[in-house]
Amino acid sequence: MAVRLSAPGPLAPIAGVRLASVAAGVRKPGRDDVVLLELAPGGRAAAVFTQNAFCAAPVTLARRHLATTAPRYLLINSGNANAGTGGPGMAAAQACCAELARLAGCEPDAVLPFSTGVIGEPLPVDRITAVLPTALAGLDARGWNTAARAIMTTDTVAKGHSVTRDTPHGPLTVTGIAKGSGMIHPNMATMLAYVATDAAVSQTALQRCLERAMGGSFNRITVDGDTSTNDACVLIATGQGAVAVDDLDSPAGETLQAAVDDVCRTLAQAIVRDGEGATKFITVAVEGGRDEAECATVAYAIARSPLVKTAFFASDPNWGRILAAVGYAGLDNLDLDAVHVHLGEVCIVRGGARAGNYTEAQGQAVMAQEEITVRVDLGRGTARTTVWTCDFSYDYVRINAEYRT
Amino acid sequence: MAVRLSAPGPLAPIAGVRLASVAAGVRKPGRDDVVLLELAPGGRAAAVFTQNAFCAAPVTLARRHLATTAPRYLLINSGNANAGTGGPGMAAAQACCAELARLAGCEPDAVLPFSTGVIGEPLPVDRITAVLPTALAGLDARGWNTAARAIMTTDTVAKGHSVTRDTPHGPLTVTGIAKGSGMIHPNMATMLAYVATDAAVSQTALQRCLERAMGGSFNRITVDGDTSTNDACVLIATGQGAVAVDDLDSPAGETLQAAVDDVCRTLAQAIVRDGEGATKFITVAVEGGRDEAECATVAYAIARSPLVKTAFFASDPNWGRILAAVGYAGLDNLDLDAVHVHLGEVCIVRGGARAGNYTEAQGQAVMAQEEITVRVDLGRGTARTTVWTCDFSYDYVRINAEYRT
Repeated sequence: MAVRLSAPGPLAPIAGVRLASVAAGVRKPGRDDVVLLELAPGGRAAAVFTQNAFCAAPVTLARRHLATTAPRYLLINSGNANAGTGGPGMAAAQACCAELARLAGCEPDAVLPFSTGVIGEPLPVDRITAVLPTALAGLDARGWNTAARAIMTTDTVAKGHSVTRDTPHGPLTVTGIAKGSGMIHPNMATMLAYVATDAAVSQTALQRCLERAMGGSFNRITVDGDTSTNDACVLIATGQGAVAVDDLDSPAGETLQAAVDDVCRTLAQAIVRDGEGATKFITVAVEGGRDEAECATVAYAIARSPLVKTAFFASDPNWGRILAAVGYAGLDNLDLDAVHVHLGEVCIVRGGARAGNYTEAQGQAVMAQEEITVRVDLGRGTARTTVWTCDFSYDYVRINAEYRT
Repeated sequence: MAVRLSAPGPLAPIAGVRLASVAAGVRKPGRDDVVLLELAPGGRAAAVFTQNAFCAAPVTLARRHLATTAPRYLLINSGNANAGTGGPGMAAAQACCAELARLAGCEPDAVLPFSTGVIGEPLPVDRITAVLPTALAGLDARGWNTAARAIMTTDTVAKGHSVTRDTPHGPLTVTGIAKGSGMIHPNMATMLAYVATDAAVSQTALQRCLERAMGGSFNRITVDGDTSTNDACVLIATGQGAVAVDDLDSPAGETLQAAVDDVCRTLAQAIVRDGEGATKFITVAVEGGRDEAECATVAYAIARSPLVKTAFFASDPNWGRILAAVGYAGLDNLDLDAVHVHLGEVCIVRGGARAGNYTEAQGQAVMAQEEITVRVDLGRGTARTTVWTCDFSYDYVRINAEYRT
C-alpha cells in the first residue's frame, strides 16, 4: 500500500530511445521481466552504481562496458539479481550481452546489463536470450510505461515521471523510470533508475548532471538502511532534441539540471512512498548544521531508527525517540540547549527538552497525517539537507519474511 | 516471548549489599517500580554510562556523584526515563537524591539515581519520595530477584545471574541483574545492569574489570541499533568477602574477571533473548579480520540489517542478504574471493559466492533452530569478535507501535 502514489500517466517519449518489455519467465512465468532499451547512435550515457563491495556481476560488467564505448542497448531483467554468483554469474551476464550484440549487430561492449531480484540464484541465460528477438522486434518509443512495470520486484506501483521545459532553442524533455522498495539506502539501494533526455549533452556535463541530481534524490532516501548489490542509475542524452548543453551553468544547462533533478527527486520519493510496508511518507529536514554532511548524519540517524519508524507507524508523537536519535548520531560537541525540533508546524522540542507550550494533541494531529515533516535545527551553522523515508509497519516484516517463499 | 530464557533462580546475596523494591506508581499503579540498593560503608562502585549526547538527567547526576564520593545508595525507577526533561528533570533527580539522603543520613552525593522508561515525561518526584521510608525499612540481602523484576519495562522475563568461584583465599561471589529489551545497541542501550561482588577490589582494578567485561557483553549486543539516553552498568565491590584483588592479572584477579565476564555475558545475552519480539537468538561471529574493530563493523552490519533479521524471523537461509551486509559494511580493499560464511556448521558462501555443495535444505535445517550462529571469515587477518542479536518480527513492530498507548 503505497503512500499517495499512483502509476504515472503516459510518459513522454524521448527521440532516440525505444523500449520493449517481454516475458522471459526469469523467476515466474506470465509477467514481463526483461526490458530492452535501445539508444540511437550518437547518444551518450552516464551512470552511477552501488558502492557495495559485493556488487553483482552485471554491475561490474556494465561499469566495464561503459568505460570502453558508448552504449547502444540496456538489457534489464527483474526476478534475479545475478549477485553472489561468482564466476558463473559473470559468464552469464557476458553471454546475455554477447547474444544481444550478435542479434543487433553491435559490439558486446555496447550492451549494458542490469539485474534485480533474488540474490544467489543462477541467472537463466537461455530463457533471457530466447526472448531477445521478440524484444528487438517490439522496440517502441512509447514503451516507457510498460518498462516501468516490467522492472518492478516488490514494488506495488510503477514509477515514472516526465518533464518538458521550453527553452529559447525549443523544448527539452526528460523522462525517467525507476524500481525499488526495499534494500533502500544511499550509495545506493536495490534500485534501478533510467532517465533520458533528448538534449545533446557533453559527456562531462552529463556525468556531473547525474551526480548533482543524485545528491538531492536517490542518495537522500532510506527505507531500511540496507544497501544493495545491484543498484544503478543511468542518465541518457540522445542529442536528438532541440537543446544542446556543454556547460551546466549556462541557461540551457540550468534548465536541464532542474528537469533532471525534478525527475530524479520524484522517482526517489516514489520509491519511498512505495517503501515496503509504508503507510507514512516522512521528510526529515535537518538545518543549522556546520556542514551538509553532519546534517545528513543526523537526518539518517532519525530516518533509520526502527524506534522512530515504528512510532510513525503508530502515529505516536514520541519525540523522545527522535531526540535520542539526534543524540546518538555522534556529532562532536553538540549543544543540546541549542537543538529545536518541529513536527510539521508544531515545535515539540526547544532547547533540548519538550517545548513548554507543546501538547500531545498537537503532536497527534500532525502524526495522523500521511505525509509528515520532521525538522531539526542543530543551532550551530547554516548548512541543511533533507532525507526522505517511510514508517516501519507489520507489512515490512511480512514482505521481507515472505519474499522468497 | 523470549528465546530460551527463564527467570533466574534465587540469586546469591552479596555481603554488604541489601535491596528493596516498592510500588510507587511511577507510571502505572500496582507494580514494584522503585528499587533501592544499599551498599555498606567501605564498598566501592565503578560505572559506565550511555554515550548518547542526550543523556538523561539521572545519568548526568550519577556521573557527577560517582566522581565525588563512594556511593551508599542506588535509587532506581522504572516507568519514566527522566530524559529530555531539561532543567526540571535535573531538579527532579536531585530532589529524589536529597530526600533519600535526608532519610538515610548520608550525603546527597552518596546517592546514584537511575531511571528507565518513557522519555520526556516529568518524573513524579512526590510519588517516588513517598515510598522511600518503606524502601529503607525493607532492605534485604535477598532482594535481588524482586529487584530484577521491578526494573523491567518492556522486558518479559526478569534477568539475573550469580556465580560463585572457590579461590585459595575462600569463595568469591558475583551477582548481577539487568533490564532492557529495546533501544539496545552498544554505547549503550536502554539497559540498566547492576553487578556486585563480595571481593575487595581497588578502584582502578574495579573500573578496568567492568570495562573489560563490557567489551564481551553489553557492548556486543544489538536489538534495534538504537542507543538509549539512560543506559548504565554499575559494578560494586563490597570487600566483605574472603578475596582481595589489587591486580586483575593476579590469580585472584583473573578469577574475579572471569566471574564478572560470565555474569555480564549471561545478562547481555538475556537482554537479546528477551529482545522485543525476538523468536531467534543469533550469534554473529566474525573472524579473519585485520583487527577487532573491523570484525565488529562487519558483525554489526549483519546484526543490524532489517533484511537479515526478517529473514531469520522467516527461517529463510537468505545468505544473499548476509553477503550484501558484509559488502556494505565499508571495509577497505575487502577481497570478496577470500570471504567464507557458515550458517551453523554449514558452509553457505565460499570465495564470495554460494558454496558449491550447499543445498537449501541444509540452510533451512539450521534456520529452523531457535539459536543460530552465523560465522563470517574475512580471510585477511587473525582478529575476531562476536555480537549477539535477535530476529525482527511482527511483534517488534507491535511492541514499539503500542508502547505509549
